[in-house]
Amino acid sequence: MPLMTGQDYIESIRRLKMRVYMFGEEVDDPVDNPILRPSLNSVRMTYDLAQLPEYEDLMTATSPESGQRINRFTHIHRNTEDLVKKVKMQRLLGQQTAACFQRCVGMDAFNALYATTYEIDEKCGTSYFANFKRFMFFVQENDLTVDGAMTDPKGDRSLSPHEQADPDLYLRVVARHPDGIVVRGAKAHQTGALNSHEIIVMPTIAMKPEDADYAVAFAVPMDTEGIFMVIGRQSCDTRKLEGSQMDVGNSEFGGVEALVVFDDVFVPNDRIFLNGETEFAGMLVERFAGYHRQSYGGCKVGVGDVLIGAAAVAADYNGVPTASHIKDKLIEMTHLNETLYCCGIACSAEGSPTAAGNYLIDMLLANVCKQNVTRFPYEIVRLAEDIAGGLMVTAPSEKDFRDPKLGPFIEKYLRGRADVSTEDRLKILRLIENLSLGTAAVGYRTESLHGAGPPQAQRVMIARQSNLPRKKELAKKIAHIEE
Amino acid sequence: MPLMTGQDYIESIRRLKMRVYMFGEEVDDPVDNPILRPSLNSVRMTYDLAQLPEYEDLMTATSPESGQRINRFTHIHRNTEDLVKKVKMQRLLGQQTAACFQRCVGMDAFNALYATTYEIDEKCGTSYFANFKRFMFFVQENDLTVDGAMTDPKGDRSLSPHEQADPDLYLRVVARHPDGIVVRGAKAHQTGALNSHEIIVMPTIAMKPEDADYAVAFAVPMDTEGIFMVIGRQSCDTRKLEGSQMDVGNSEFGGVEALVVFDDVFVPNDRIFLNGETEFAGMLVERFAGYHRQSYGGCKVGVGDVLIGAAAVAADYNGVPTASHIKDKLIEMTHLNETLYCCGIACSAEGSPTAAGNYLIDMLLANVCKQNVTRFPYEIVRLAEDIAGGLMVTAPSEKDFRDPKLGPFIEKYLRGRADVSTEDRLKILRLIENLSLGTAAVGYRTESLHGAGPPQAQRVMIARQSNLPRKKELAKKIAHIEE
Amino acid sequence: MPLMTGQDYIESIRRLKMRVYMFGEEVDDPVDNPILRPSLNSVRMTYDLAQLPEYEDLMTATSPESGQRINRFTHIHRNTEDLVKKVKMQRLLGQQTAACFQRCVGMDAFNALYATTYEIDEKCGTSYFANFKRFMFFVQENDLTVDGAMTDPKGDRSLSPHEQADPDLYLRVVARHPDGIVVRGAKAHQTGALNSHEIIVMPTIAMKPEDADYAVAFAVPMDTEGIFMVIGRQSCDTRKLEGSQMDVGNSEFGGVEALVVFDDVFVPNDRIFLNGETEFAGMLVERFAGYHRQSYGGCKVGVGDVLIGAAAVAADYNGVPTASHIKDKLIEMTHLNETLYCCGIACSAEGSPTAAGNYLIDMLLANVCKQNVTRFPYEIVRLAEDIAGGLMVTAPSEKDFRDPKLGPFIEKYLRGRADVSTEDRLKILRLIENLSLGTAAVGYRTESLHGAGPPQAQRVMIARQSNLPRKKELAKKIAHIEE
Amino acid sequence: MPLMTGQDYIESIRRLKMRVYMFGEEVDDPVDNPILRPSLNSVRMTYDLAQLPEYEDLMTATSPESGQRINRFTHIHRNTEDLVKKVKMQRLLGQQTAACFQRCVGMDAFNALYATTYEIDEKCGTSYFANFKRFMFFVQENDLTVDGAMTDPKGDRSLSPHEQADPDLYLRVVARHPDGIVVRGAKAHQTGALNSHEIIVMPTIAMKPEDADYAVAFAVPMDTEGIFMVIGRQSCDTRKLEGSQMDVGNSEFGGVEALVVFDDVFVPNDRIFLNGETEFAGMLVERFAGYHRQSYGGCKVGVGDVLIGAAAVAADYNGVPTASHIKDKLIEMTHLNETLYCCGIACSAEGSPTAAGNYLIDMLLANVCKQNVTRFPYEIVRLAEDIAGGLMVTAPSEKDFRDPKLGPFIEKYLRGRADVSTEDRLKILRLIENLSLGTAAVGYRTESLHGAGPPQAQRVMIARQSNLPRKKELAKKIAHIEE
Repeated sequence: MPLMTGQDYIESIRRLKMRVYMFGEEVDDPVDNPILRPSLNSVRMTYDLAQLPEYEDLMTATSPESGQRINRFTHIHRNTEDLVKKVKMQRLLGQQTAACFQRCVGMDAFNALYATTYEIDEKCGTSYFANFKRFMFFVQENDLTVDGAMTDPKGDRSLSPHEQADPDLYLRVVARHPDGIVVRGAKAHQTGALNSHEIIVMPTIAMKPEDADYAVAFAVPMDTEGIFMVIGRQSCDTRKLEGSQMDVGNSEFGGVEALVVFDDVFVPNDRIFLNGETEFAGMLVERFAGYHRQSYGGCKVGVGDVLIGAAAVAADYNGVPTASHIKDKLIEMTHLNETLYCCGIACSAEGSPTAAGNYLIDMLLANVCKQNVTRFPYEIVRLAEDIAGGLMVTAPSEKDFRDPKLGPFIEKYLRGRADVSTEDRLKILRLIENLSLGTAAVGYRTESLHGAGPPQAQRVMIARQSNLPRKKELAKKIAHIEE
Repeated sequence: MPLMTGQDYIESIRRLKMRVYMFGEEVDDPVDNPILRPSLNSVRMTYDLAQLPEYEDLMTATSPESGQRINRFTHIHRNTEDLVKKVKMQRLLGQQTAACFQRCVGMDAFNALYATTYEIDEKCGTSYFANFKRFMFFVQENDLTVDGAMTDPKGDRSLSPHEQADPDLYLRVVARHPDGIVVRGAKAHQTGALNSHEIIVMPTIAMKPEDADYAVAFAVPMDTEGIFMVIGRQSCDTRKLEGSQMDVGNSEFGGVEALVVFDDVFVPNDRIFLNGETEFAGMLVERFAGYHRQSYGGCKVGVGDVLIGAAAVAADYNGVPTASHIKDKLIEMTHLNETLYCCGIACSAEGSPTAAGNYLIDMLLANVCKQNVTRFPYEIVRLAEDIAGGLMVTAPSEKDFRDPKLGPFIEKYLRGRADVSTEDRLKILRLIENLSLGTAAVGYRTESLHGAGPPQAQRVMIARQSNLPRKKELAKKIAHIEE
Repeated sequence: MPLMTGQDYIESIRRLKMRVYMFGEEVDDPVDNPILRPSLNSVRMTYDLAQLPEYEDLMTATSPESGQRINRFTHIHRNTEDLVKKVKMQRLLGQQTAACFQRCVGMDAFNALYATTYEIDEKCGTSYFANFKRFMFFVQENDLTVDGAMTDPKGDRSLSPHEQADPDLYLRVVARHPDGIVVRGAKAHQTGALNSHEIIVMPTIAMKPEDADYAVAFAVPMDTEGIFMVIGRQSCDTRKLEGSQMDVGNSEFGGVEALVVFDDVFVPNDRIFLNGETEFAGMLVERFAGYHRQSYGGCKVGVGDVLIGAAAVAADYNGVPTASHIKDKLIEMTHLNETLYCCGIACSAEGSPTAAGNYLIDMLLANVCKQNVTRFPYEIVRLAEDIAGGLMVTAPSEKDFRDPKLGPFIEKYLRGRADVSTEDRLKILRLIENLSLGTAAVGYRTESLHGAGPPQAQRVMIARQSNLPRKKELAKKIAHIEE
Repeated sequence: MPLMTGQDYIESIRRLKMRVYMFGEEVDDPVDNPILRPSLNSVRMTYDLAQLPEYEDLMTATSPESGQRINRFTHIHRNTEDLVKKVKMQRLLGQQTAACFQRCVGMDAFNALYATTYEIDEKCGTSYFANFKRFMFFVQENDLTVDGAMTDPKGDRSLSPHEQADPDLYLRVVARHPDGIVVRGAKAHQTGALNSHEIIVMPTIAMKPEDADYAVAFAVPMDTEGIFMVIGRQSCDTRKLEGSQMDVGNSEFGGVEALVVFDDVFVPNDRIFLNGETEFAGMLVERFAGYHRQSYGGCKVGVGDVLIGAAAVAADYNGVPTASHIKDKLIEMTHLNETLYCCGIACSAEGSPTAAGNYLIDMLLANVCKQNVTRFPYEIVRLAEDIAGGLMVTAPSEKDFRDPKLGPFIEKYLRGRADVSTEDRLKILRLIENLSLGTAAVGYRTESLHGAGPPQAQRVMIARQSNLPRKKELAKKIAHIEE
C-alpha cells in the first residue's frame, strides 16, 4: 500500500469516531474545529513531506522485512544512520511547523517496545515480541499515526501506584479474561492522541512486584469503546476562534494536549506487550524516555530555527540588524540552539544495537540532550523577546488594525522601518508572541521542560549512567592514590 | 481633602470620559469591562491599602509643603528613607496584586520632573519648576493617579526623531500659540493610562538641537480632546470574558497596555515642563528611567513572592514538598528574587540629593537593579514551571471541570495529594500559568525586560556610570605601572 | 591612646612571639618573611588609611562608651549607617590591596559576641557579656587586630563533634580548673591569625547537649603558650621568594592562611564568652556568619574593582578598548560586581537592633549576598581572562625579560600597542594572573566560595529565612484558595 | 618502520638540539628538566598507548597510501568515523594525563593543509599539495610529533599585519632565494613545540593583498638554525622543582607553553605550503581552527573526567558522598562535561569531504563546540572547588606533613573520614588545586578560553555559518509574510 498523502491522512482521521470533549461539550467534528485543526495540520506535514522527492531520504525508510518504502515515523532504527536521520527529520518538521508534530511518540514507543518485548520473551517465554511485530507491520502497511502514551496522572508523587488512595491514578488491569484484559485509568498530557489512529499504552515508572497490575503495555485503536479525551487549555487557545490569522501568529500549525481516559477498555490478547512482568517496566520506561529525549534534540531545534529567524526579521524591521548587541544575541540564540542539535546528533551517532537488533541511542548523551532542552529554549525565548521589543505584547488586535478609523493610526504609529509594512511587522511579532507566550509556548517552553520527563528524571539517569567509579579511578591514578 | 477610598477612585475614573478602543470598537464603559477591570482593581489597591493603619507608614507620606498626609505615589522623595519606603510599598503591592499596579510611572515622572525642571529654570530662566509644582499640588490635593508616558513608537531605530520618514513617530509640537502648544504623536506600551486621571508626557531619548520640536514635556487630563487609546492584546486576554474565575488564575488583578494617540492635542502654557530645551531631554530621560529601574526592584519582587508561594503550594499538592530538588529550586527562586530586592534597596539607600532638594537614587545601582530584572524573573518562571509540572499547561477548562459528566473524571484523575481538592490544585496551577504564560506573564516577563528601557539601555548607563578610569588607576597602582 | 600608625602596628606584631611553621621549619621572623609579609601589609593598610583625614569617616568611629575615636574594625555597630560604612570601608580596602586584609573576622566576631553574650547572660545568668566588653575595651584602647576563628577541621562531615573518631577534630574543653579552662583542637583556614594580636575562638556549628564540651568561645593572645600555626600553601606562593616584583603581579599585598593548633591552651575565666551553653552555639555561628557574609559584599567588590580595571588596562594595551565585545564584557563584569555591592549595602541598610543594642544585618539578605559571592567572582575572573588573552599564562619570566640576550626579543614580540611599554603590558597581565590563578586567586575565588561558609550553608539559611508560609498565603489569596 | 615506543620517542627528542630558554638561561637538558619533563611525558603517552592492543583502534590508523599502521596523530581523516575516533582518542588521553598532550596541533594542521594546499594548487597551479604530502609521508614513516604554530604575537590588535609599527609582529618572509625563503617573526603560546620534531607554521588571520609577505606556511625541524624558545611561566611552575610529588597534584604529566622565535630562519622550497596567496590564508586559518575547536570536545572532556572523579573522591573522603547537594553538583559537572563531548562527537559525525578527499568537521558545530569549552570548564572547576572545600587552598606543604614534629598534628587535624589516610586526602585536594589554580589550570581554564581562538572568534564563525537568511525565510513562511 502506498504512503498516505496528507489529504488521505486527514480523511482517515475524520473516519475515526473518537470521543473528544472541550469546554464541557463533546466536539462534533474535531477535524474541522479551529482550535484543534492546527494540531492535525502539524501531523499532516509528516505525510506531506514524505511525498516530496527532496525529503524522501529523511522522511522515509525501507522496511527490511517487506522491502517497502515506509514513513520513517513507523520505522525501527537499524543503525546509527537511522538514528541520525530521525533527528534531522525532526528538525526539518520543527522548521516547517514551528510546533509539535506529535508523531514521534509512536516512533519512540515502537523502538522501545521492539527491543524490550524481545528481551521479555527471552527471559519469560512470553510472545510479546510477535504481538508487537504484528502490530508494527499493520501500522507500517497502513501508514498510521500512533500515539505513545506513558504519563499517568500519578496522584500523590510520594506514593507508588498501589499505595495511592485511588488505585486508578496509575492505569491498571481491572479484569482479566481469556481473550484479553480490561484496563482503567488515564494518560495525561497526550499531545498527539487526538490525531492518531492507534494508541500505545506503557507504564510510566519502574515497578516492584506489588505493582503487577500496573505493569501493562498494549495498543488499541483510538476509537475503541471506553476511550475519550478531554482537551487541555492552552495559553491563547480561544484566540484561534476569532478568525484572525495575524493575531494567532502561526495560524496553520499547532499542537494540542489531551487527558485520555480509559474507562474500562478491553484489550485483546494479541495487542498486549507487557502484562505483569514488573521487572521490565523500568527498562521500557527508560528506553522510551531515552528515545524521546533524543527526539527533543531535533524537533525543538527546528522550532528554535524559526524563532531565531523571527527575531532576526523583527530586528530588520526595527532598523537595527547591525547593532552589535543585536547581532550578538542572535549568535547566542544560534549557539544555544546548535548545542541542542549537537546533543541530538551525538546520542544518535553513538547508538548501539540491542539484543533484538534495533539501535538504541547512547543513554547518557540522550539524557544530557534533554537536560539542555529544559534550559536553553527558555534563554532563546528571553533573547527573542529582548530583540522583538515590547510591542510584541502590547500591539493592538487585527480588528483594530483593519478598522477603518483606527487602522490608519496603527498603520502610522506602529511602523518600524519605513520600507516595511506595519502589517508584516505585526505578523512577525505575533509569531514571536506565539512561541514565547501563546499556544506554541506550551510546546516550546513547558513541554521542553516536562516532555519525556522533567529535569530531575534526567539527572537521575545522568547519575546512573555517568560511571563515577571509573572517573574516581582515573583521578586516583593521576594523584598516585593506592587503596 | 482626605485621601480617596478605592471606591471613590473607581467612581472618579468612571466620571472621566476617556476614549478607549479594543477589538476595533470603542469601549462604552471601560470601568466595567471584564478585560480592563482587573487592571483598574490593581490601581485601586494603591488607594485601599493607603486607608489601612498598618500600611500608613509605607503607603502615605506627609507633604512638607502642606503638612497633609498624601499618598506616597504622589510624593516627592526627600531622603533615602523615602526611597527605601517606595521600594517596600511596591513589593507590598506586588504581593497583593500579583500584577502591575501602574501608579509608579506617575511617581517616577514626578520626581524626575521636580529635579529636572528646577535645573532647567536655573540654566534657562524658564518657569517649568513653578508649573510643575502647581500641577503637583493639584495632584496631591486630589489624590490623583497620573500616567508617566515616555516611550514613543520610534519607527526606524537607526534614525533620530527628525530623520524619520514620518515626523510624528516621536511625539512633537506641531503648533505654537500664545496660550499653549499643540502636540501630535503617540506613546506606546502605556500600562496605566487607562486608569489615570492625568498623563505626563516626556521625551524618550537624549536629543540634539535639530530635534527641538521633540523636546517637550507636559501634563494633561486623560480625557483631553484629541487623546484616545487602543488597548494592546495580551496573551489570554479574552479568557477574562469567559466568566471563569478558575481559568484566569488571577481573576481580580491585572495590568493592561495601551497605545495612547495624541491627535493634535492642545496643552496650555502652565502645564508645560519642557519645550525645546533639547540639552535637558537626556537628563529627564535618565532620571525618569533611573527611578523607574529602581521601581522594578520592588514591584517585580512582590510578584515573585506570589509565584514562589504558588510553586511551593503546587509542590505541597503534588506530595513532594520535601524532595531535595524541589526544596533547592524554591531556595534558588528565593535567592534570585531577594537579589533583585537587594538591588532595589541598595540604589535607594545610596540615594543623594538633587539641586532641587529631592532625592535621586544611585544611578549605577538602579541600572544594575533593572538589568538583573531582565534576567532573573525568567529563571524564576522556569523553575516555577518545573515545580508545577506539565499539568499547568494541559489541564482542562473549568467548564469541563463543572460538567456533570466530565467533572467526576477530572476530579478523579487530576487529584494530587488525596487530602487536597482537585479544584484547589487546578487553581494554583492556573495562577502559575497566568504568571508564566498568561496575561500576567506580559508584566512579569516581557515588561521586566523592556519596561523602563530594554537591557541594552541599562548596559549603556552602567558603562557610563562605572568610572572605569578610576578602576584602571587602582589596577595600575597595584601593578606598579607609572605612566 | 591614639590609633596606631601602620609602622606601630608592624612593630607591635614583631614584638609578639608567635610560633609559625612553613615548609617543615619554624619561621624565625614572620614579619620579614617574603611569603608572609604581603599579608601583613594588607592588615597594615587598615591602620594606614585610618590615619588619613579623607578616610576618617569610613575608617574610624567614635566609641559611645569612651568617646574616643577608634578604628572601625574594633567598633560595635550602633545603627544601619555603621553597617553601611563597614561595607564601604571594606570595598575601599579591597581596592587598595587587591587582597584579603583580614581584620574583618575580628570585627564580625565582636559584633556577634556582643549580641549573643548579652542574650546568654539574660537567659543563663552568666557574665559573658561583661567578660566580652572588658576584652573589647582593651582591644579598642590598644587598637589591636583580632582574629575570629570559627572553622574546625570537622573530620568526617557526616558525624557530629562528639561522634568523631578523634574527639579533637572540633576544638573542645579538655580540662576545667577554678581559674580557667584548657582547650585542645585546631582552627583551619585562618587568614589573619598570623597578623593578629589576639584570637577569638568560636564554635563552628549548632550543637546539641551531648556536644557541651565543644560549645566554647574565648579570646587569648596569639602568642599564648600552646598555640602554633602551620602556613598553608597557596598557588604560586614561592614565586614571592624569587625577588621579582613583576612576576608576582601584586608584590605588596596578599593574604595567607594558616592551620592554628591549640595544643592544650589555658584560657582564664575572664576571657571566656561561652562554656557549655550548647543552645547558644547556633545563634553565635549564625550571627558571626551573617556579619561575615555581609563583609564579602564589600571586600570582594573592592578586589573586583581592581580586576575590572586591570582587564580594561589590558584591553587598552592590546589596542582593542573600543571593540564592542570587549566593552560588553567590561560592562558585564561591572554589572556583576555592583550586584554584589547592592547585596552588601542592602543587608546593611535593612539591619535591625539586637537585644544588646548593637545592629544586626538582615540575615536573609546577608546570606543572599554571600551566595552571589560564591558565583559572580568566578564569572568576573573568566571574563578578565578572556579580555587579557592567552599571554597572561604564557608570558616568560622577568628573568627572561631582563636578560640581555633574550630581553630584546621579548620586548619586541610581546609588545601590544606601540606606545605602551612591553614591561607595563606584562605587569598588568601578571596582576590578572595573580587574581585568576595565583596567590590572590585563593582569596578572590576559593575563599569567595568557602569563606563565611560554603554555598550550601547559605542555602540552608535562605530556606530558613524565606518565610515560605507567608508566600504560600499570598498565592492562595490571589488564587482564591480557602483552606 | 614500526611505531615508536614512548622510550624511543623520548630519546628521539633528546637527540634534537633545540634551543630552550627559561628564567633567563638556556636549558641544557630540556628532556630531564623537572619543569619541562611532565609535558614531555604527556606527549609520550600518545606513543605508549599506541603500543597497546586495546587502544590500537583509537590510537592508530592505516595509511591508505602505504597500507602501514600509523599513529592517528599523523593521519589524514578519510571519513566521519576517523573524525569521531579522533575525539575519542583525545578524551582517552585527557583521562590518562589530566593535561594537554600537545600532539593535536600537528594533526589538525595536517588535515587543514591537506585540504587547503590541494585547493590552492587547483586555483594557482602551485605544487604545495605535493610538498605537503612528501612531508606528511616523512612524518608518518618516522612517527614524528609535529607542532602546528598559528598564533602570531599580533601587537596592536586594531592593526593588520603590514600596519604594525614593527613589521615582524606577524611572522613574514624577509628574503626570497632561488632555493627557499627566509622568515622572521614569532609564534606565541606554543604548547607542544618543545616536544616536537617538526614545526608547521601557518598564518593567524585572513589577509588582504597588501599582507602578501605574511601569507606563508611551511614546516621545518625544531632544531633548525634561527629557532629558539622562551618558556612561559605557569602558575605554580617552580613547585615542580621542589621534589614533592604530593604538592604538585599531578607529578607525572603537564603541558608547557613557549614563545617560539624565528630569527631569520631559512625554509627550503619543498617545505613551503603557502607563499603569498593571501586569498587562501583565511581558508587555512578557518580549517585549522575548525579542526582544533573539534579537538577541545575530546581532550578537555577527558581532563574533565579526571576532575569530576577527583571531586567525587574528595566528597568520599569528607564523608559526604550521599549529601543531595553534593550528588547534584557531581551530576551537573557530568552534564556539562558530556555536553562538551556531544559537541565534539556531533561536529565529527556531521563531517563532510573536501575537494582533496579528506574529511572536514561541520564548521558550525565545531565552533559551537569550542564556544561551550570557553564556558563549561570554568563552571566545572567552580563546582569542584565547592565540593573539595577550602582545605584545597590552605593545606600545608608536604614538607610540613613529613616533618617529625608537625606531621602528627597535620595527620591528626586534616583527616577526613577516619578510614582514609590524611595523605590520600591531601593528594586528591592537590590534584584539584592543580586543575583549578595550578599548572594544569593554565590548560584546563585559560587554554580552554583562548586555545584555537578566543570566544569572539567562534562567535564570528557561528554568525557566518548560521545561515540566518534561511531561518528568516522559515519564520516568514510560518508568519505568512510575503515580500
